[in-house]
Amino acid sequence: MALKKKPVTGMKDMMPGEMEIRDYVIGLIKETYRTFGFSSMETPCVEHIENLSSKQGGENEKLIFKILKRGEKLKVDQADSEADLVDGGLRYDLTIPLCRYYANYANELPAPFKALQMGNVWRADRPQRGRFRQFMQCDIDILGESSNLAEIELILATSTLLGKLDFKDFTIRINDRRILKAMASYSGFDEADYDGVFITLDKMDKIGLDGIRSELIADGHTSAMVDKYLQLFAGTTNDIAGVRHLKDVLEGFLDAKTAEGLEEIITCVECAKETQFDLHFDPTLVRGMSYYTGTIFEISMNEFGGSVGGGGRYDEMIGKFSGQDTPACGFSIGFERIVMLLLEKGYQVPSRKVKRVYLVDKNLPREELGKIFAAAKSERADGKQVTIIKMKKNKKFQKEQLANEGYTEIIDCYA
Amino acid sequence: MALKKKPVTGMKDMMPGEMEIRDYVIGLIKETYRTFGFSSMETPCVEHIENLSSKQGGENEKLIFKILKRGEKLKVDQADSEADLVDGGLRYDLTIPLCRYYANYANELPAPFKALQMGNVWRADRPQRGRFRQFMQCDIDILGESSNLAEIELILATSTLLGKLDFKDFTIRINDRRILKAMASYSGFDEADYDGVFITLDKMDKIGLDGIRSELIADGHTSAMVDKYLQLFAGTTNDIAGVRHLKDVLEGFLDAKTAEGLEEIITCVECAKETQFDLHFDPTLVRGMSYYTGTIFEISMNEFGGSVGGGGRYDEMIGKFSGQDTPACGFSIGFERIVMLLLEKGYQVPSRKVKRVYLVDKNLPREELGKIFAAAKSERADGKQVTIIKMKKNKKFQKEQLANEGYTEIIDCYA
Repeated sequence: MALKKKPVTGMKDMMPGEMEIRDYVIGLIKETYRTFGFSSMETPCVEHIENLSSKQGGENEKLIFKILKRGEKLKVDQADSEADLVDGGLRYDLTIPLCRYYANYANELPAPFKALQMGNVWRADRPQRGRFRQFMQCDIDILGESSNLAEIELILATSTLLGKLDFKDFTIRINDRRILKAMASYSGFDEADYDGVFITLDKMDKIGLDGIRSELIADGHTSAMVDKYLQLFAGTTNDIAGVRHLKDVLEGFLDAKTAEGLEEIITCVECAKETQFDLHFDPTLVRGMSYYTGTIFEISMNEFGGSVGGGGRYDEMIGKFSGQDTPACGFSIGFERIVMLLLEKGYQVPSRKVKRVYLVDKNLPREELGKIFAAAKSERADGKQVTIIKMKKNKKFQKEQLANEGYTEIIDCYA
Repeated sequence: MALKKKPVTGMKDMMPGEMEIRDYVIGLIKETYRTFGFSSMETPCVEHIENLSSKQGGENEKLIFKILKRGEKLKVDQADSEADLVDGGLRYDLTIPLCRYYANYANELPAPFKALQMGNVWRADRPQRGRFRQFMQCDIDILGESSNLAEIELILATSTLLGKLDFKDFTIRINDRRILKAMASYSGFDEADYDGVFITLDKMDKIGLDGIRSELIADGHTSAMVDKYLQLFAGTTNDIAGVRHLKDVLEGFLDAKTAEGLEEIITCVECAKETQFDLHFDPTLVRGMSYYTGTIFEISMNEFGGSVGGGGRYDEMIGKFSGQDTPACGFSIGFERIVMLLLEKGYQVPSRKVKRVYLVDKNLPREELGKIFAAAKSERADGKQVTIIKMKKNKKFQKEQLANEGYTEIIDCYA
C-alpha cells in the first residue's frame, strides 16, 4: 500500500507557529485555573461504547469513531452488525468520562472536587472550514457542590482567563432550565412541546422576536399563547431587575426550587459585579444538551460572532454511573475557537527575545566544536534559546532564513 | 446497556496527584527543549492504516487499535476481512506520523527542523503492571541535519532535562548500526545471520559474555567465529580509546561511511565531555527498531534498572513518504517511566506554598459573599491558590480534610 502524506480526513497537523500559541494558552489556562483551586485530571481517550451510547451525548452519539475489538473476540466474517465488532470508541466530550471517573473514585477525591480537564475529543462531523474531527476541549467542573458557589467560581474563573488573553469584548449570559420551563408553562404550552419551543427560541440571535413568532405559529401554536410567551421576553431586562420582574410575573408557576433558582441568579450577578464583571441574565438562553438540570451559561464574543464556550448544571448525570445523584456544574471554553481568534489577530506569545544560532563550518576542529557546546550550555541554563547548526554553502540565504525564524544573534564559527 | 465505572481495559485514569507531576514534567520538558531550539508540533492521534502497516513499525504493527470506517463505506454484513472495515488506527508511535508530516510540509519548515512532540500513543499490549495501552511519548527529532551536530544536540538536551528533574545517576550510551555490522562481518558471520546475532547480543545486560557465547554456539555458529566476535567486545573500552581501538582492529572491514561513523562517535563523546557530561561508547548496544541506519543511543538509570529512553538515526524513513531521503535523528525519553520514578520517590512539585480556602456559611448574606469573591480576585491575581466552598455541618472534619489537601489558610465566613 502506498504511504500517505496528508493527515486523515478532517483532522489537522499542527504547525510550529500554531503550536506555540496552543502551548502558551494551555499553560495560561492551567496556571489561571490553579489559582481558583482546580486540579488537573485525565481519562483515557478511549471510552466504553456503552458509556458513549447511553443517550447522554445527544447528537454526538451519531458521530463516534468506533474501535475494533482486539484478538479472538473479533470475527469479521461472522459479524452481522457493528455491535459484534466494537467495544470502545473515541470520546466525543469530556463530561461523560468525568462522570464515570467521579463515580469510580469519589471516595478518594476532595469534596467538592474542582476538576480541570484539557484533552482531545473526536467527532466524525462532516469536514468544514475551521471545524475538525479531532479537537481540544477545556472543561472546568465542580462536583459535589449544590450551592451557587459553583456557578460563581466557574464564571469568574472563565472570565479571568479570557481577560488574561487580552479579550475584552466578551459577554457571559446566564439562565436556568427550570425558568425556561416555567415560562413555557405560564404561556400555556403543552409540556410535550417544550423541547420544540426551546429549539425555536434558541434561534433568537438569528431570527429575532418576529422570526420566533412566525415559527411558533407555523408549528401550530395559537397566537394567544405565542404572544403571551414573547411578551414575557420583551418585558424582561438582562439584569437583576429583569430577574425580579420575571419572578413577580411567574408567581404561581414557580415551584420552590425554580424560585430559588431565580434568587441564585441574582446572587451570581451580584457577586460577579463585586469583582467588576458584568454577568447578563438572558431568559432566551437555551443550550442544546438535554442533560442540564438547572443553571446554564454561555460566553459570546463580538470578535467571533458567536458562542466561544458554555456550560451549566447537570445534577443527574453522575447518578447514572454511581446510582447516587451528585450535584455537578461545569463550564467549557472553546479552546480551538480561542486559538483561531488569536492566530487571526496575529497574537504574539510573550517570550524571551534573544534567540541565538551558532553556524558551524564543516571544517571546524573537534576541540573548537566542544567549546561552542559548552558556551551554549551556560546560555541555555540562563533560559536563552540557542541552536547549533551546520553552515550551508549559501550562507547569505541561510542567514536570511534564520532571521525570518526570529534568530536575533547569528554567530559564524570558522576554523 | 449498563454504564461502566472503570476505565477501558489496560488504560488509566489520572488522579490529581499524578497529574500535578505530569503537568510539571511536561512544562519542564517544553521549557528545556525550547532553550535548545526545538519547536512543538503535533499530528492527529488517528493515522492512515496504510502508514501504520508499512513495516516501519516492527512488532508494534500487531498492536494497532483499528478504527471502523464511517458511514456508507461500512458494510459489516458483507465484510470478509478487517480491510473492508478499517481505514485508520490510533498511532503506536510518534516517529511514523513525524515522517509523514515532514514529507508533507518540508517546504514550510526550517532546515534543519528541530521538532518536539509530546503526545499519547496506543498499543494493545497485554495489560501488565506499570504498562498501559495508552501512554505519553516525548520525542525530539532533528530532520535535515546529516552531521553529528544532531546527535550531540539530542544527547545534551536529554541529559540537561534529566538533570533538571534531579536525576543524577543515569548513563547515556552510544553505538552505530554500521559498527555493529562491521564487527559481525569481521568475525565471519553471514550477513543473513546478523539480525539473529544482534538479538542475542542485545541480551548482554542479562546473560553476560558467557551467556552470549553459549547462545550463539547453540544457534549453530562456530566457536572460532563466536570467540573472535566476543574478543572484540572484551578488548574494547567504553571511551574514546575503545572507539580508536576498534577502528584499528576493524581496518579493512570498514567502508568510508562506517569509519566516519566511528570518528563521529569520538566527536560526540568529546563535545559531551566539554559540557561536563560523560557519554559512554557501548559496542554491545543494539536497539530494537530496524529503521535505524547509523548512530543509536540509549539512557539507562540505576534507579529504574533499565532503559528510560533511546533513539538514533533513521535516514531512510522520510524518503518512504516523500521519495527523497532526508537525514533524521531522534531521541525519545520514557515519559511514563520518569513520572513513575518521581511518584515512587515522593517527588514534590515546586509550587507556591500558600493555599487559602474560604469556608462560607450557608446563611451568609449576598453582599458579604460578593466581598469574599472580590478579595479572592486580588489574591488570585497575585498567583495565590484560593478556593471558596460551603461550610459543612461537621466543620472540624471538613477542616481536617482541607488541611490534608494542603490548604494552609482556612478562613471561616459567618453571617
